[in-house]
Amino acid sequence: MAFFQTMNNIAILGYGNIGHAAEQALKNSIDLTFTGIYHHSDFSSLLADAKAGKIDGVILSTPTRAVPEYAAELLKVGISTVDSFDIHTRIPQLLSDLMPLAKAGKAVSVIAAGWDPGSDSVVRCLMQALAPQGITYTNFGPGRSMGHTVAAKAVEGVEDALSMTIPLGTGIHRRMLYVKLKAGADAKQVEQTLLKDDYFAHDETHVVFVDDIRSLNNVAHGVNLVRNGVSADVHNQRLEFNMTINNPALTGQVLVSAARAALRLKAEQRYGAYTMIEIPPVYLLEGETEKWVKTLV
Amino acid sequence: MAFFQTMNNIAILGYGNIGHAAEQALKNSIDLTFTGIYHHSDFSSLLADAKAGKIDGVILSTPTRAVPEYAAELLKVGISTVDSFDIHTRIPQLLSDLMPLAKAGKAVSVIAAGWDPGSDSVVRCLMQALAPQGITYTNFGPGRSMGHTVAAKAVEGVEDALSMTIPLGTGIHRRMLYVKLKAGADAKQVEQTLLKDDYFAHDETHVVFVDDIRSLNNVAHGVNLVRNGVSADVHNQRLEFNMTINNPALTGQVLVSAARAALRLKAEQRYGAYTMIEIPPVYLLEGETEKWVKTLV
Repeated sequence: MAFFQTMNNIAILGYGNIGHAAEQALKNSIDLTFTGIYHHSDFSSLLADAKAGKIDGVILSTPTRAVPEYAAELLKVGISTVDSFDIHTRIPQLLSDLMPLAKAGKAVSVIAAGWDPGSDSVVRCLMQALAPQGITYTNFGPGRSMGHTVAAKAVEGVEDALSMTIPLGTGIHRRMLYVKLKAGADAKQVEQTLLKDDYFAHDETHVVFVDDIRSLNNVAHGVNLVRNGVSADVHNQRLEFNMTINNPALTGQVLVSAARAALRLKAEQRYGAYTMIEIPPVYLLEGETEKWVKTLV
Repeated sequence: MAFFQTMNNIAILGYGNIGHAAEQALKNSIDLTFTGIYHHSDFSSLLADAKAGKIDGVILSTPTRAVPEYAAELLKVGISTVDSFDIHTRIPQLLSDLMPLAKAGKAVSVIAAGWDPGSDSVVRCLMQALAPQGITYTNFGPGRSMGHTVAAKAVEGVEDALSMTIPLGTGIHRRMLYVKLKAGADAKQVEQTLLKDDYFAHDETHVVFVDDIRSLNNVAHGVNLVRNGVSADVHNQRLEFNMTINNPALTGQVLVSAARAALRLKAEQRYGAYTMIEIPPVYLLEGETEKWVKTLV
């Protein structure tokens, strides 16, 4: 396909776990070319390289709050973007903000392309189509919650922390919050402050004091998506999706798959901003559609 | 959306379990109008109604071998079709046969839209995108295999039969073959003939003689799709999809969801033939994309 030969240069903005995983995934792909990974403080270099025609698409693996601005800057100059923006409530706004920029720039932006939001969104969408009435529960974990971990670290008296999300079913979660105290901190007071924090006050939370957080470090995560619904007039249709995964590796891989889809949509001149439920799943895969119809359908 | 107001009349060809489930699913939808269910011997009436402009799309719930001809006839006169054609090896051929007809007729055909092929194909595609290296196993059942049941019924000495597919993992299946003998038939000889039949010779098959097949009847089925693969350079990414479902109800529901997608693709003038992995998942759902971005992404 022409677009694989002419416009397949992908750069990465953001040096973290996810950026490095995306770099690996890009290097493993046969249809996309990795052109470089840029620290987000070096965005001007990236933009210069993009304007010089060296880059067709950029994977944004920056902190999620920085995504909207970087995406807008790149789309304006006709460079396609993908991101794993994960603030669920702000996704519709981001989509409508980037839509006119992508159209004007004749580029494509695929947003919220991680595993949740992202591939889980596709599974929820498919489950909805299979059984239009019913309830889908998303049960996360066990795995680390970045947001909760950062919130805990900000509390006075906390030297280091790790918040694990434990699924209790029906979308309810327990927080196992591991805390290393600063020298001289009052354990009881720190615990009370943590339990009153908005991040923890609404869930069952257990504070566990430990001497070392690093020894608990594990980027494993998982999800259990479950729906009991109605197809036609038949109730009790049971659908379930489970994953146990290395979190940054999966996110990096999804970003690369989404970058491929972005280039394909751009090659078809279907400029605009998309979430993953709006993209043909086969566009995520390298090579000809015909091959996948033969082997996957 | 305009297409919901102007061209949403769906008819069904085929009076079986799946046709009736599709009728129920159509009646439950708020955006599609059920215009009638036709016996496949009455195809000429359906064609007349379609030519008279009363029908925009047809759900083909006929025997699978009859699908290619009915679809071709309808696409030629500009009527969109959906089917759950399930002979996996012939799907690429059907796709390429219907493609020019659909384009010429300015219509859309969604083929192989059941649960396997169909929604399972979408899950396999998504799993491939999440972990590009690895093996996906499709484990069917427990549930009735129509093909094997029909083959067993054709054997001399068999009055009635039911072949159940039992998953043994890694895509290997056991056949539990329940047989009611004709009066005077030799059980040993019937069993030997069955075990030599091409449908049963390659799998572990157990023949169980019973007095009554109807009392075993159950349209439940299921699948376990499992992939252990590699994301970026990280191995042991574990992905799994499970269903336990009423088979005709799910197939009928998927056909209706696919009919919705066909009308939407037609409204966008994206004429042609598609499998489900080539369709944006949100096109399967009723109502505005914006609503689903908000609730599912």
